[in-house]
Amino acid sequence: MASSNEESTKNKTLEQQDHLLSKRYIGLEHNVWTEFTTLAVQHNAVNLGQGFIDYEPPQYFLDIYDETVKEHNKFLHQYTRGFGHRRLVEAISNVYSLYFNRKIDPFKEILIAGGAYPSLFNAIHSIINPGDEVILIEPFFDCYEPMVRSAGGIVRCIPLRPKPESLKQDISSSSDWILDKNELELMFNSNTRLIILNTPNNPLGKVFTREELEHIASLCQKYNVICISDEVYEWITYDNKKHIRIGTLPNMWQRTLTIGSAGKTFSATGLKLGWTIGPENLIRLNQIVHQHTVYLCPTLSQEVVARCFEYELKRLNSSECYFNSVSKEFIEKRNQFAQVLKECGMKPIVPDGSYFMLADFSSFVNDEQFQSDENDKKDFKFIRYLIKEKQLAAIPVSAFYTKNHQYLGENYIRFCFAKHPETLDKATNILRKLKAH
Amino acid sequence: MASSNEESTKNKTLEQQDHLLSKRYIGLEHNVWTEFTTLAVQHNAVNLGQGFIDYEPPQYFLDIYDETVKEHNKFLHQYTRGFGHRRLVEAISNVYSLYFNRKIDPFKEILIAGGAYPSLFNAIHSIINPGDEVILIEPFFDCYEPMVRSAGGIVRCIPLRPKPESLKQDISSSSDWILDKNELELMFNSNTRLIILNTPNNPLGKVFTREELEHIASLCQKYNVICISDEVYEWITYDNKKHIRIGTLPNMWQRTLTIGSAGKTFSATGLKLGWTIGPENLIRLNQIVHQHTVYLCPTLSQEVVARCFEYELKRLNSSECYFNSVSKEFIEKRNQFAQVLKECGMKPIVPDGSYFMLADFSSFVNDEQFQSDENDKKDFKFIRYLIKEKQLAAIPVSAFYTKNHQYLGENYIRFCFAKHPETLDKATNILRKLKAH
Repeated sequence: MASSNEESTKNKTLEQQDHLLSKRYIGLEHNVWTEFTTLAVQHNAVNLGQGFIDYEPPQYFLDIYDETVKEHNKFLHQYTRGFGHRRLVEAISNVYSLYFNRKIDPFKEILIAGGAYPSLFNAIHSIINPGDEVILIEPFFDCYEPMVRSAGGIVRCIPLRPKPESLKQDISSSSDWILDKNELELMFNSNTRLIILNTPNNPLGKVFTREELEHIASLCQKYNVICISDEVYEWITYDNKKHIRIGTLPNMWQRTLTIGSAGKTFSATGLKLGWTIGPENLIRLNQIVHQHTVYLCPTLSQEVVARCFEYELKRLNSSECYFNSVSKEFIEKRNQFAQVLKECGMKPIVPDGSYFMLADFSSFVNDEQFQSDENDKKDFKFIRYLIKEKQLAAIPVSAFYTKNHQYLGENYIRFCFAKHPETLDKATNILRKLKAH
Repeated sequence: MASSNEESTKNKTLEQQDHLLSKRYIGLEHNVWTEFTTLAVQHNAVNLGQGFIDYEPPQYFLDIYDETVKEHNKFLHQYTRGFGHRRLVEAISNVYSLYFNRKIDPFKEILIAGGAYPSLFNAIHSIINPGDEVILIEPFFDCYEPMVRSAGGIVRCIPLRPKPESLKQDISSSSDWILDKNELELMFNSNTRLIILNTPNNPLGKVFTREELEHIASLCQKYNVICISDEVYEWITYDNKKHIRIGTLPNMWQRTLTIGSAGKTFSATGLKLGWTIGPENLIRLNQIVHQHTVYLCPTLSQEVVARCFEYELKRLNSSECYFNSVSKEFIEKRNQFAQVLKECGMKPIVPDGSYFMLADFSSFVNDEQFQSDENDKKDFKFIRYLIKEKQLAAIPVSAFYTKNHQYLGENYIRFCFAKHPETLDKATNILRKLKAH
């Protein structure tokens, strides 16, 4: 094979070269989180951008962390098992075997990675070859696309579309956004290898219904496609909407990789631990990528998360269980913040799950300066203005669409409402003043 | 582009497919650590295999960990800066600016990853395109090869060769293993993009001399090649051998990525935090890969490592400083263990750095059962026997060579001697009995 660097490049010094970056990553330089998180810090903005709580994680989590560190167990400061700390995979097996209605093998059917993010990387890069097609449902968590493209895969996108009547409402629901069944089937063909599902969905907060999942499952089986199911917000659903794991539908276990997050589960995103659950033959593929990228994950935090799962396992059916109580912590915030947005003249889409809320800001600001141009979408412009001039950070929703579909998201911005009441009050004041002005 | 999966595969169910794994990873399924670490655990073996201490990390590290967790700082449990926790990159900048004799920009010239391992992944995958050549110096830490191959790169290998007279000695030195200067230059051509250097070298323990590094540096400049310098054992050198950073040689800063490890630096491998230091334009490439694989690293452990660096910064010139004292902790172990091996009839190669020691076991066991065959090298066979039958784990050295050069390593096994005296005593007893038998 010839080197992919042109000969002319070879004769230049490193400083003169503009092709240093591997071709797999060309076009993937930009990252919405890097831009807006940095900007939010620079301007000391009230941060409703990134998805994390800005108050304490649950007390028992802190207590378990304290106890674990204080034990000074020397083995907790050294390498552990590469594919997952033994006690952690056993705890995850014990918990999730109940939800999957099958005994999950802790050593062969679970892989621990440094977050749901690298779990997604492992899953995508272990399967996708150049030219393989991957179906994404827009709006999608933005990392899916560069992970597929850096593996050489081709992204095929289908947007969730709001029911027309919902667009007229001041407040609508994430469940108003639906997939067209025929349009979805048209995405599948003999080159399709993967579909990436995210339920509850980030950024929309949609919780896919059993009927929707059954349709996706039937297409996966018909076209022999593997499903990566990103379920990091699995415990955060509202109004009795039930989170359904697609891997539990008939004939789906053997073609589903289910991804979860310790950071989201225990409201401690600093942990950066995630897991993938699935059949042995697919988990094995993930292990191979994992062993050549990071090899293993931190020991002590895996022990902490194991103990947290053990703690919850004893009270899974109780309302005290954090998995059951966490949504109650967020629902008041959700309802209040939706009201604030509505009063300000934005049109919130109230989520059925997750702790994000989209808002249509198109009638809130009609300013010329925020019109889309070839360099920038209006939501990007508006958020930059919000952060720089008003010290309030959110995330532009066109970032969750592929380039050609960005117009579908450019009227929306995403807020994270899983914040301390003081933070939400500050944000509310900024929004109200902005409207008044 | 056509799908790389053959049509016949498409018509099979998932269970019938044997081509599920991405082609980038085919041939890379096996991993020496997974095999031998699992085997060591199964047989409850005395473990001189993996490179970590089996006793407590330094007391101040434990104290800082305790204090940091006890503070219950809510921000230490949530996301931090993606390219590295602010306090950590600042601390690393403050320390390494002294060793590099230049002000290192904490935000543009340092990237934090989840260990030196993913730091290597970032560096290799950000630069290598299919067909690009990468020079590795054998024996090398085994992960380099699959990382290059999964990026589509071509590995070109040059072995360190022992001086002939050293082979006759019962005890030789890692400094007896040298590169042939002309042979090294023959490795370079217009397709060469990278050379990966590891000093102190794992598994050999060789500390490259200034003269050797200057030769490598001159070739990097002549052929416009980037150097990845894996320096995770930078603080562990013996007998006044000085660790020299190739990035400090004239004209090398701009083409060197220097990789370090918190786990190795603070004798706490469970941390899984590493860093890459280099010029802004190269670090930027690493950031791009990092942001599409893991995005960010755990917050709390980054804070702990930051405080440990701050602690050491105050006493860098004191003999108390762990960077200066850690080798003294290991040198006695090194000397004693070399003696044990010699007395047993193995021929140790005494390392100038790191905490590994190779030993030529070829006259120690002449057993027929350990002869290499097409499936297996004799060192692999011998280690499996050692673990299963004698409950002693080490690592076969042919694993640190490319396939065609494995015969150069098959007479050697690698021991880690950074172990508690009791562990070393147990290992000694096993080795002595084995010989007597």
